[in-house]
Amino acid sequence: MPAPPLPTPKVIRVNTRGAVILAEESPETRDSRGIYLPNYIEPVSHIAIGGSLAKVVYFTRSPEEPPSPSIAATRGSSSEPSSPRSSGVGSPPSRSPLIPPSSSHTRNGALTPLVLESHGNGHNDTLDTDLLRSTILKRTTRVHHIPGGSINFERFETSNISSLITFISELISRSAIANGVSIEEMRRGVKIMATGGGAHKFGELFEKELSVEVRREDEMECLIEGMKFMAMIPEEVYYFSDELISELSHPVTTKGTWGRKDAVTTSSTSADQPVLERPSPDPPKYTVTFETGEEPSAHLPCLLVNIGSGVSIIKVDADGTFERVSGTSLGGGTLWGLLSLLTPARTFDEMLALSEKGDNAMVDMLVGDIYGTDYTKLGLKSTTIASSFGKVFKHSGEGKEGSERGTFSAEDISRSLLYAVSNNIGQIAYMNAEKYGLDRIYFGGCFIRGHATTITTLSYAIRFWSKGKKRALFLRHEGFLGAIGAWIKNIDAEEIQGSSPAAIS
Amino acid sequence: MPAPPLPTPKVIRVNTRGAVILAEESPETRDSRGIYLPNYIEPVSHIAIGGSLAKVVYFTRSPEEPPSPSIAATRGSSSEPSSPRSSGVGSPPSRSPLIPPSSSHTRNGALTPLVLESHGNGHNDTLDTDLLRSTILKRTTRVHHIPGGSINFERFETSNISSLITFISELISRSAIANGVSIEEMRRGVKIMATGGGAHKFGELFEKELSVEVRREDEMECLIEGMKFMAMIPEEVYYFSDELISELSHPVTTKGTWGRKDAVTTSSTSADQPVLERPSPDPPKYTVTFETGEEPSAHLPCLLVNIGSGVSIIKVDADGTFERVSGTSLGGGTLWGLLSLLTPARTFDEMLALSEKGDNAMVDMLVGDIYGTDYTKLGLKSTTIASSFGKVFKHSGEGKEGSERGTFSAEDISRSLLYAVSNNIGQIAYMNAEKYGLDRIYFGGCFIRGHATTITTLSYAIRFWSKGKKRALFLRHEGFLGAIGAWIKNIDAEEIQGSSPAAIS
Repeated sequence: MPAPPLPTPKVIRVNTRGAVILAEESPETRDSRGIYLPNYIEPVSHIAIGGSLAKVVYFTRSPEEPPSPSIAATRGSSSEPSSPRSSGVGSPPSRSPLIPPSSSHTRNGALTPLVLESHGNGHNDTLDTDLLRSTILKRTTRVHHIPGGSINFERFETSNISSLITFISELISRSAIANGVSIEEMRRGVKIMATGGGAHKFGELFEKELSVEVRREDEMECLIEGMKFMAMIPEEVYYFSDELISELSHPVTTKGTWGRKDAVTTSSTSADQPVLERPSPDPPKYTVTFETGEEPSAHLPCLLVNIGSGVSIIKVDADGTFERVSGTSLGGGTLWGLLSLLTPARTFDEMLALSEKGDNAMVDMLVGDIYGTDYTKLGLKSTTIASSFGKVFKHSGEGKEGSERGTFSAEDISRSLLYAVSNNIGQIAYMNAEKYGLDRIYFGGCFIRGHATTITTLSYAIRFWSKGKKRALFLRHEGFLGAIGAWIKNIDAEEIQGSSPAAIS
Repeated sequence: MPAPPLPTPKVIRVNTRGAVILAEESPETRDSRGIYLPNYIEPVSHIAIGGSLAKVVYFTRSPEEPPSPSIAATRGSSSEPSSPRSSGVGSPPSRSPLIPPSSSHTRNGALTPLVLESHGNGHNDTLDTDLLRSTILKRTTRVHHIPGGSINFERFETSNISSLITFISELISRSAIANGVSIEEMRRGVKIMATGGGAHKFGELFEKELSVEVRREDEMECLIEGMKFMAMIPEEVYYFSDELISELSHPVTTKGTWGRKDAVTTSSTSADQPVLERPSPDPPKYTVTFETGEEPSAHLPCLLVNIGSGVSIIKVDADGTFERVSGTSLGGGTLWGLLSLLTPARTFDEMLALSEKGDNAMVDMLVGDIYGTDYTKLGLKSTTIASSFGKVFKHSGEGKEGSERGTFSAEDISRSLLYAVSNNIGQIAYMNAEKYGLDRIYFGGCFIRGHATTITTLSYAIRFWSKGKKRALFLRHEGFLGAIGAWIKNIDAEEIQGSSPAAIS
């Protein structure tokens, strides 16, 4: 077998200087906030299709910075707690994604490919934001002299792919009107970059229904490119605080035997393995710390753990070369699938909401349930989960004549399964980070959804197994890494061609 | 913290020369066949209590080898396919465990502690086997001059602990009659060794209800001692054949791209990771190979993966010292618990039977479901499971109005979850074996139950992740390691005391 060629490191050409993440409009949009790039000029639009969710990324022009600044918290403090949005899994699929809330003016922007730069002010009377309107009116100079605009993020269920087709179709039509060109001309200026399973499944459909060029991109390459790009955006990468680790290095005896290392008396145990208290699911006890946004090299080498329906674990070397070194089939699809059978929840957000109210100790067998106390010889706290769902069989199985069957609450089941899947991913991720000597472990993928319990569990697993030496890092746009990577991957090509593609990636 | 003392290696005093495993009486007894020890003389009886099943081990005298020899297959070829037994989880809990099938004469033996050796033939008219009767009649010399007898294995649900109390109580009564002594005298010659969570939960209950001494033993120590002892029994340790590995080292192109390494063209992939075909769940394609039974040192160092309700992963050094280095809460309890909620099966054996008829591709999202083909760049076959239960959410989730909910068969669900749990344990076990440089990976615990699909999946996972370099090893009495270890651990103490304990361990 011939040695495969190594990929060359890429220089990212998108100017991220001054980039800001826009405000969260509602809890559902916490991972899909727009990013304002005041110094970027190239207008392209991309769509990436993943396993179970279609992630859509596209860029719209708006040279003035939008009024909503970044807010420094994963969950944010939105003044519009439940403004209807099209992007969430939880939103009704029938509603048009083109009716944005009035505050999300960045999403109303039009695609403005470079081929259209000689056109002046067009028929922009269908646009409903003053900002975009003023942008168009100002375009007396060449387009590339008016930098600035936003990357927009949307999600669609691939089971409801027609709504995605409609969305892109309307985006193109609107952009044609805004730019004062025909739809045919607009279509020629648009390319779609398709990546992941969706590229296989829907590539031809996009070409046929949208009459635009479709390019197919490798999924893993897009993930890595996307991660590298997003890591440059200030306040995009975050992690939980070191407070827990410092507590451990200065242990204070609390109730029980926690931290009482003198209670560890036996030989054949991992006595040097610290017993970490499970962090509470809600900040601010473990406050979120944001990184400032650095060059990609500051983030490498690293491990990227992408949690979609399944899990891919990718080692990225200092020079940007990467390898999918591991993975697990126990991912988001497992949690969603089992909870859709076991609970009345019909969307993943509903499942997460259930889990917030649950107590996993009702279904999980804890160390304390087995031994009555901590198993100090093994360094296991009484609250450590010994067996996920371990109490269920006992109460519904043989000898009970099924009388107690089905008495487990959807909330408790949801929390138990969320813990089980998250812990397991964290454990396998840690072992790979250890194997390859990597200290930075990034978690991405639609599974995370900015959900505090998920993030806490993954963070805790990395801390626990690494004895506080390694750190779990997260990205606000965790579900869009492949889509943003597909967008980035084609920037160079566009510049060379001098054309203005819109891309399905 | 003071350095804990290291345990000293132990010499096992039980004479295993000539040991044979007795015939399987039915599929349910495949992992609880008696072991005949022609040269062992010390009569002790032990009971070990685990998380969800109470494992009972006790020794009965019978100097003549029983007529049923060992049979060389995990599943055996029983002529009594479904003879009722008390040992399985699947047997009705109300039936007395003291009514054995006529062939299992070894289970009818009585405890004969050394303190009773001066007693002659007693009231043995309640014993229903000719062999034991003749044994008792022959006892004109001192007991230790008539070696030979069997280790017996029984299982009880801890949720039905009263049947276990009844079992031990009747065993003591019967033994008193067989030995011609009073029940009180018999009780003084019996000790119980309790280990695991049951020691905490039921120790006092045993002392009170049975009026015998109860000793508590450390669970991990017992597991290791039990594994070391059992590995000396011929045809106890087995593994699947090397056929698969040799196929891989001489790859033949079959349908699809399997083995076609020239199809791997990309750089950034694990191109050197072999793509292993999933073995069929049924031997004889991957035939069982038995080890001959060797000194414990031949088995060390090793990794012991004990799969009960949860999973403990224990590193055992060449000198017998050990450390619990890892574990996962995704174990037998998880499979049993989830399947008891998702299927009509009420016992674990029913769940395993369901899984034999299932097709996991109906609920799992395979690589081929996502990409339409192998993802050769990543070395993933189209039949590789990308997401366990990944098809469920898609068909029962949002946008489908719940119409397809519940259309997944219990068989398919059972097989998918069995694969998911087994694969995951195999993956984590392999990573630990790799980390500590251990080539021998033993799997024990009640989860396995001699079930071909489970064993195949674990074997496959170790082969896959180790690229054929490491081997999964199994033990016929996989669920009884802790119990047998508790029995072994006290042999030395008994000899020193000169008394004849019966032990609950």
